[in-house]
Amino acid sequence: MFELDRSSPTPLYQQLRDQVRQRILSGALPPGTKLPPERTLAVRLGVNRTTVVNAYRELAAEGLVEGRVGHGTVVLRLPEEAAPGAVRPMRWAGPTEAEEPLMADISAIVRRPGAVSFAHGEMSPELYPTGALRELAGRVLEDGTALGYGPIAGYGPLREAIAAELGVTPEHVLILAGSQIALYLISRVLLQPGDTVLVEMPSYVNSLGIFDAAGVRVVPVPVDRDGLVVDGLDELMLRYQPKLLFTLPTYHNPLGVTLTLERRRRLIQLAARHQLGIVEDDPYGRLHFTAHPVPTLKSLDPGDYVIYISSFSKSVSPALRLAWIVAAPPVVERIARARGNLDFRAALLNQRLMEAFLREGRMAEHLAALRPVLKARRDALLEALQAHMPEGVTWYVPEGGYHVWCTLPRPLTARRLLVEAGREGVAFMPGDYYGAGQLARRGFRLNFSYPRPEQIGPGVQRLARAVERLMREEAAAGGEPGAFSGPVV
Amino acid sequence: MFELDRSSPTPLYQQLRDQVRQRILSGALPPGTKLPPERTLAVRLGVNRTTVVNAYRELAAEGLVEGRVGHGTVVLRLPEEAAPGAVRPMRWAGPTEAEEPLMADISAIVRRPGAVSFAHGEMSPELYPTGALRELAGRVLEDGTALGYGPIAGYGPLREAIAAELGVTPEHVLILAGSQIALYLISRVLLQPGDTVLVEMPSYVNSLGIFDAAGVRVVPVPVDRDGLVVDGLDELMLRYQPKLLFTLPTYHNPLGVTLTLERRRRLIQLAARHQLGIVEDDPYGRLHFTAHPVPTLKSLDPGDYVIYISSFSKSVSPALRLAWIVAAPPVVERIARARGNLDFRAALLNQRLMEAFLREGRMAEHLAALRPVLKARRDALLEALQAHMPEGVTWYVPEGGYHVWCTLPRPLTARRLLVEAGREGVAFMPGDYYGAGQLARRGFRLNFSYPRPEQIGPGVQRLARAVERLMREEAAAGGEPGAFSGPVV
Repeated sequence: MFELDRSSPTPLYQQLRDQVRQRILSGALPPGTKLPPERTLAVRLGVNRTTVVNAYRELAAEGLVEGRVGHGTVVLRLPEEAAPGAVRPMRWAGPTEAEEPLMADISAIVRRPGAVSFAHGEMSPELYPTGALRELAGRVLEDGTALGYGPIAGYGPLREAIAAELGVTPEHVLILAGSQIALYLISRVLLQPGDTVLVEMPSYVNSLGIFDAAGVRVVPVPVDRDGLVVDGLDELMLRYQPKLLFTLPTYHNPLGVTLTLERRRRLIQLAARHQLGIVEDDPYGRLHFTAHPVPTLKSLDPGDYVIYISSFSKSVSPALRLAWIVAAPPVVERIARARGNLDFRAALLNQRLMEAFLREGRMAEHLAALRPVLKARRDALLEALQAHMPEGVTWYVPEGGYHVWCTLPRPLTARRLLVEAGREGVAFMPGDYYGAGQLARRGFRLNFSYPRPEQIGPGVQRLARAVERLMREEAAAGGEPGAFSGPVV
Repeated sequence: MFELDRSSPTPLYQQLRDQVRQRILSGALPPGTKLPPERTLAVRLGVNRTTVVNAYRELAAEGLVEGRVGHGTVVLRLPEEAAPGAVRPMRWAGPTEAEEPLMADISAIVRRPGAVSFAHGEMSPELYPTGALRELAGRVLEDGTALGYGPIAGYGPLREAIAAELGVTPEHVLILAGSQIALYLISRVLLQPGDTVLVEMPSYVNSLGIFDAAGVRVVPVPVDRDGLVVDGLDELMLRYQPKLLFTLPTYHNPLGVTLTLERRRRLIQLAARHQLGIVEDDPYGRLHFTAHPVPTLKSLDPGDYVIYISSFSKSVSPALRLAWIVAAPPVVERIARARGNLDFRAALLNQRLMEAFLREGRMAEHLAALRPVLKARRDALLEALQAHMPEGVTWYVPEGGYHVWCTLPRPLTARRLLVEAGREGVAFMPGDYYGAGQLARRGFRLNFSYPRPEQIGPGVQRLARAVERLMREEAAAGGEPGAFSGPVV
């Protein structure tokens, strides 16, 4: 009836007192009930008799029970206004909409024995720089200086290190508790209801719902194998007068593609011409598989048009919740003020850890080991796609990052495929999670950072079987590949 | 001219390439400029010649420079649209209001040698359980399982531990990245523009600006030495139909007072009668100086009227950014959905750390050591106030927590005192930071968790001198204590 938790920091007598009180107030132990004798209850719960004595004594002090010699401890009648009948539960409204079932569906697939998940957005645990972090944690915790709040803009030496990497001043850098917080604050500080923004389509940003809540209009911009399509942007900017453009130019999520250097330069020129801010999200930039990665938009931006966001979540670990904005000092100033009543600070302990990780060259070591491993997984995935996928399925080759984007031939859709794939115990992220339109609906994202290397080939093989099944159903239903054959899911 | 950072993870040749490019694009190195010869620049920067060779080669590939035999490497004329003249800096608006200078003023005081700060909201570093956290970090990082994203509602065993402490189910518990995020999400999910909330006055919540931005009306409720004043709440509730009441009942910030058990019961009854939710913020609850602390509102709340917030920031460390909401499952569900595009997750590494800290009894050890130390600092502060403060200054005695609240006699104000105290090298938080009204304006908060024990007496002595100076000025200006003598700051 009572459950005491010996591992809890709350003393046992207090736990018992609270649980008895709860039952008295809720009416489960009505007035006149005789509580178990102290010794009996002590034996039953396996505690000292003093524990029970103290619990009963406090309840008596609260006027809830009374110890009567020869009668034991009895529950008293409560003052009328505290009578259990008056304490009905609060009626809290639950969520108004059913939750998007996608994540639950994917979780259900992935939970089964033998399942292969291409749906993750993180690395498999053995790829984290665990040993280095353990060693540095020991050093950072040699004294208590890493355990206070820290400065509001972030730990100074970490800001300096990030500033040096990007060739800017520390006043350009603000450390935040994650990229989502960064996007949210940028939106809150720089946008107002009625403003327009340009957003890549597809893009993970579309799944966030940041702009709906803010009353901001989203105009989609297409993305192809060379990244954001810059042709036509001039007209879009003239027509819609957007305030900001959101792009993830390096190993795009979900398409994996890279914005070419030429398009990057043109984009910066357009921004200058239209006085448009560009938000460059760069979570995967360090995870390049080529010797000469394309420079960030930020490094091509002497005019500070770009608000650059990055984090350690994809290159080191998402368990740290550390991201940074790099932007013109007036922007940093405004966002720093707004964060004071939101995330307040990024965890100082984690900032100290990562500053040491950078300073001691552990990042370079970690990346030198990680890049070839991720590249090998990408290659395994591409080889398996080549070997097993039926004609008509296409994919982009990413030069880094975590994901490969595949496209099904009409009229197949990724949602239908997910149902079939689920039967094969394979999961992935369907493209319409990232936006609207044909490309998104027929597309799906395959992650290669999470599955073990030996799972990739078999996983793709099973996925290919699911595609083939879907194609046969389609043909049987009378459709030709490329012909419309009914409502697309 | 070029500064290369050898400790940066970015290869040196990339750093050089980026810096040269920046200067070309900004016009600092105009077309026709001859770059330093490779060997010369290598010697000047103290790098391998290959570093310079590779940097120049990449710039040539980008079309920015050209290597001419016998002439060296020359900056090319850029395509017209990339000409430096077209790249003017983006005009970003800075903050529209001057920043509240209070924090800067306090920082200025505290920076001086010999300054004593009673203005902090954290502990001095030696009070953190550094050794225990170091040891547990080593164990939690024995493998990479603490380095992924973790579940959206928080690490399961940590939710269970917190649920057990409070006698609720894990479905009642959500782990968030800080108390401010918790307050923000509660406001966003449960309140709409035009709603009314009841908020203690003074209260740190008033300094957050959460409700202004949300279009929510704030009705203040007074607090006295026994906490929130419950008399009159019934009428307030009938008149304003508030949705929520915000209270910090245990070692109130900034007043330090404790809501009595009797008032707690009455408050829960009122909530039930009016179907009003109560937000109970409890950051200091573990830091009690008495053997029998008052039970939380949540533990007296079988009807789930209370949304309980707590964190480890004040009892263990603010560097972890870990807080939790304990509320009826429908409320938890709604807040869990909203957090997905805000803080997204609380740091899994830190959650694992604290779950181990609780499970292994380190919390109980830490608190057993910490409470007497904080109590001794409180006692030193109270003794010094008694010994040095002039007649007319009063204070509350807190039964736990971090702070003592003092009140100046009319017509003195805490803001005027801060100026005088600054001359003595003593800082504190003036009451009007926490809200409007006489009590706030004449009051100030003295923190005892941060100053070293040996600083407390001398700090109060100097503060008392500042009070005396202020009183003499007041008397010299012709005022009698208690008489109005001009505008109150």
